Amino acid sequence: MKTFQDIWRSAKVTRHLYIGPVSLIFHFRRKPKITNNLLLSLKRKLFHHFFLENINEAINTLKQEHQDFYKKESTSRQIAVIVGVGPGFGYSLVEKLAIAGYHVVAVSRDAGRLEKLVNRLILLNSNILAYSCDATDESAVKELFSYVSKNFGVPHLVVYSVQYFSPGRVTEVELPAFEEGWRNNCLGGFLVAREACRAMQAEKRGTILLVGSTSSLFAREDHLNLAVGKFGLRALAQVLAREAWPFGVHVTHLIIDAEIDEGVERNVNRPKANPNNIANSVLFLHEQSPDSWTSEMDTRPNQEKFWEHC
Amino acid sequence: MKTFQDIWRSAKVTRHLYIGPVSLIFHFRRKPKITNNLLLSLKRKLFHHFFLENINEAINTLKQEHQDFYKKESTSRQIAVIVGVGPGFGYSLVEKLAIAGYHVVAVSRDAGRLEKLVNRLILLNSNILAYSCDATDESAVKELFSYVSKNFGVPHLVVYSVQYFSPGRVTEVELPAFEEGWRNNCLGGFLVAREACRAMQAEKRGTILLVGSTSSLFAREDHLNLAVGKFGLRALAQVLAREAWPFGVHVTHLIIDAEIDEGVERNVNRPKANPNNIANSVLFLHEQSPDSWTSEMDTRPNQEKFWEHC
Amino acid sequence: MKTFQDIWRSAKVTRHLYIGPVSLIFHFRRKPKITNNLLLSLKRKLFHHFFLENINEAINTLKQEHQDFYKKESTSRQIAVIVGVGPGFGYSLVEKLAIAGYHVVAVSRDAGRLEKLVNRLILLNSNILAYSCDATDESAVKELFSYVSKNFGVPHLVVYSVQYFSPGRVTEVELPAFEEGWRNNCLGGFLVAREACRAMQAEKRGTILLVGSTSSLFAREDHLNLAVGKFGLRALAQVLAREAWPFGVHVTHLIIDAEIDEGVERNVNRPKANPNNIANSVLFLHEQSPDSWTSEMDTRPNQEKFWEHC
Amino acid sequence: MKTFQDIWRSAKVTRHLYIGPVSLIFHFRRKPKITNNLLLSLKRKLFHHFFLENINEAINTLKQEHQDFYKKESTSRQIAVIVGVGPGFGYSLVEKLAIAGYHVVAVSRDAGRLEKLVNRLILLNSNILAYSCDATDESAVKELFSYVSKNFGVPHLVVYSVQYFSPGRVTEVELPAFEEGWRNNCLGGFLVAREACRAMQAEKRGTILLVGSTSSLFAREDHLNLAVGKFGLRALAQVLAREAWPFGVHVTHLIIDAEIDEGVERNVNRPKANPNNIANSVLFLHEQSPDSWTSEMDTRPNQEKFWEHC
Repeated sequence: MKTFQDIWRSAKVTRHLYIGPVSLIFHFRRKPKITNNLLLSLKRKLFHHFFLENINEAINTLKQEHQDFYKKESTSRQIAVIVGVGPGFGYSLVEKLAIAGYHVVAVSRDAGRLEKLVNRLILLNSNILAYSCDATDESAVKELFSYVSKNFGVPHLVVYSVQYFSPGRVTEVELPAFEEGWRNNCLGGFLVAREACRAMQAEKRGTILLVGSTSSLFAREDHLNLAVGKFGLRALAQVLAREAWPFGVHVTHLIIDAEIDEGVERNVNRPKANPNNIANSVLFLHEQSPDSWTSEMDTRPNQEKFWEHC
Repeated sequence: MKTFQDIWRSAKVTRHLYIGPVSLIFHFRRKPKITNNLLLSLKRKLFHHFFLENINEAINTLKQEHQDFYKKESTSRQIAVIVGVGPGFGYSLVEKLAIAGYHVVAVSRDAGRLEKLVNRLILLNSNILAYSCDATDESAVKELFSYVSKNFGVPHLVVYSVQYFSPGRVTEVELPAFEEGWRNNCLGGFLVAREACRAMQAEKRGTILLVGSTSSLFAREDHLNLAVGKFGLRALAQVLAREAWPFGVHVTHLIIDAEIDEGVERNVNRPKANPNNIANSVLFLHEQSPDSWTSEMDTRPNQEKFWEHC
Repeated sequence: MKTFQDIWRSAKVTRHLYIGPVSLIFHFRRKPKITNNLLLSLKRKLFHHFFLENINEAINTLKQEHQDFYKKESTSRQIAVIVGVGPGFGYSLVEKLAIAGYHVVAVSRDAGRLEKLVNRLILLNSNILAYSCDATDESAVKELFSYVSKNFGVPHLVVYSVQYFSPGRVTEVELPAFEEGWRNNCLGGFLVAREACRAMQAEKRGTILLVGSTSSLFAREDHLNLAVGKFGLRALAQVLAREAWPFGVHVTHLIIDAEIDEGVERNVNRPKANPNNIANSVLFLHEQSPDSWTSEMDTRPNQEKFWEHC
Repeated sequence: MKTFQDIWRSAKVTRHLYIGPVSLIFHFRRKPKITNNLLLSLKRKLFHHFFLENINEAINTLKQEHQDFYKKESTSRQIAVIVGVGPGFGYSLVEKLAIAGYHVVAVSRDAGRLEKLVNRLILLNSNILAYSCDATDESAVKELFSYVSKNFGVPHLVVYSVQYFSPGRVTEVELPAFEEGWRNNCLGGFLVAREACRAMQAEKRGTILLVGSTSSLFAREDHLNLAVGKFGLRALAQVLAREAWPFGVHVTHLIIDAEIDEGVERNVNRPKANPNNIANSVLFLHEQSPDSWTSEMDTRPNQEKFWEHC
């Protein structure tokens, strides 16, 4: 008897259904958990003020803040969209940008996970919005950029740092995992960079930063699902840099060859990169003058063996 | 009013349909034209003998030949599967191998196109079979390898030379074309190499050759759809070489930086590679001893500028 | 009859003189014009004050300044040694560092050429010293670092930006030019980096920045004399980074793929890098935290074709 | 008191002696042991025949052979010059070429060491000459090629496989060793390739093969003296390929990432490359058609970790 697990495994396989001269290609995937950002935002703030037992004031403040967030200073402040915000690098980058005064849109499959981070930054008076989006879904990405452009303006800095890794030898890798790896490591980067570039090149300014890893340069045993996507993302970075730089859009590829410190106590003895310092490199790259742009740089801890991370 | 073209363009977009906790991801594609190989083969041979006005003898010969093809010498002869056989390199490689005495399975989306080539080689007494297969369809690829293994044995040489290129700036590339490029340039290579390796590593012998191009190393403007897949294919080649070499399976990456002579009179003044000579390199790589295997080499005409081809 | 030119050309050839079991290897070179820095410094300052017709005051001020220069603040200020200071990048880097408060030692074959720059910076109250040194002469380099260490302390930032290029096809390149290219592009970098690293690793801090170019990665026709040295310098950067990083010394390789604006009106229509902005990248690299160091980055103007410069 | 060792160490340092506007740059080195080839050859053959107690016949045969060697068939036979013939790869390549009917000139610092090899091959009726030459000495290299051209003709295949490695951290490497490494790994390759190319391009044919190693691509700790030269040799290979290919001269770079089996019983358990098989790759590269030349390929045993050798 087939278990549910078997059925699901089989459902994930891409199938080709031939209908006359056309083939329907399809597969099933687990639906990403999508949190409604505005509700999250409202709930969070209401809760916060409710706790202060002053609900009316809370709502007024909220409206005020809301307006501020969407309108005030939006001409002078820079807008950053960070796609793939997770513990470590993503959190630090979002925090650094928020505190530096950017309007930050922190994008994650499940924005609900960013609640703590967002709360803390809002208490610090930062302009930050958590946004749920599956970066591998074209219409979701289009919606994200149209939402950002309408409400804040054309972003100045867009970072793609989604990373997906499932180890396994080539002969054991199943097609759904292979596709899933590529979709997250590469196709999502294409969707995000394309929408960002379309908007930015009209403004003749902006930075698109794609995050690579050792597997962008060296494809090692058991790393198929990471390397195929990361190699592809690097190809995207090279092509788009050549195309977009002349239009004033800075496309750059940052190779992180490091274990990033997420504040959790594991592998205590191994060298770790402080994500704040990697975030500094992002800011540096974003602030470079167009006559001296960088297309690729690497970063790792000084105690780390070179190119040993995945 | 929407034209058929618009509808079709829209049908090709990958869509996500959320059904409870699951999402159905699908898009439409043109169905590859599949020619039934055996019918092709029968028709061809019958016609040939009918012309000789000796239909009974023809059928007997045919049966005899058929048997020969499937059984005789099949233990001593090497089996080669060439996926992506087109004019130029593919044709020459198939011809060289067939004449050298290999059992050749020439795989193409539309094996019907190979009829002339196959006819000519059969008249030369070669063992060749044209086989229609969409290399980006997992079940079709599995079927191909199971067919080959059952009828001929585990292949000794498998070449993946499918190439797909649709130029365009990143901002103008549509998702279906992006995916199509990657599926043909990379995912098909994964499916073919995985099945080949699964069969070969049990035998502790065999060669898997993946064909790259300049876009495997340099990703240039307008080449997104080629480069993302070719970079990914190179990642596959690197990973699989590290994994499969110790098991006696030679995985190698041949970078063709050349316009290949297809016998057609265009660009007469530009240097062209004779596909027969590139095929020699394939044979050389296949025949290397395990203690001195090559993982990557390039090839181009001596009159060609280096790394200027796509 | 041999002309002087012929004799000189012949004198430049490296010769091997066998003396018993030993061979003396020698060749002649033009002697670099060495300017005595201190005299230059005195002359400059005296002239400046003489012009003000107050020679006694001048001398007192000079003594005072001199003392300041060598002693005051030398514990708190950072020390930078820039080897190969020429118009463009070198000038800008020296100026930026001097104004930022570094003790700067500007090293050139002919420090006399730096007189104007040095004068201007001294009037801006900067701590700068011009120093003549042939970076390809081991004892001269040792003397430089011993002088700097004794008078200022162990340098915090050492930059090697000597570049030598004489075009020519391989078959036409003469040995003296070949050696001269390598000595300037690579051997000098070794001598400078070795002395810098020896001093720095005892302090467990410091940055050694080696300047590369497109010819560090791509060796093109007519570029033998640049590429052999630049490839070698990159090898040095890779080896030394692996060896010195764990000891707290940041070795990094900056690839400048640009025509640098030297303020002269030539090739007006071609994109140029503002050397001030490249200098910013040097400062950024120097100020990175050890947990997130960069080993290699490139830089070019956004209007520049990628990897087309030498 | 200074020991002889100290004096010698000091003598090896390159010194600059300034004489007016000129500087004399010199250092001492141990003289390579030069064996006179012809005497070696005569002695060997006479001894051989003397042993057979038929000295007159011996001398006649010798004269005959000598004549054969220099004149007969020299128009039809290909001429190969192998520079840097040592146990393992060099020996095997020389043997393979000699047996395949090439006129082989086996070049080594000390041709006397090749006596056994040469004797064996001559008994097999091969045309082989051992030639002593310090490949880093310009006049010696010129003499070699002028000798070969005059006596045999313009070579068809020239291989540079000199390798020099002295490990050590950058801070501990002394200048003489640094220069010696570069001279052997790179400068000698330049001298040999330049002379070969000058002769070959007039004939519009010929192959120049430069032998690289892992250190041609990856410069690791303790490998400065190998990597600087190997990176430089690769630069030479890239430049010369671009320049010489259009004139019909095939320049190619073979990267050997292997421990080569020298027939000695050490490291028995580590995978080794059979030098005969590497020699096959050399022959393959030499025999490629100009429309499909290879500029770079690697080779290693299938049991070897990738890119772990120096």
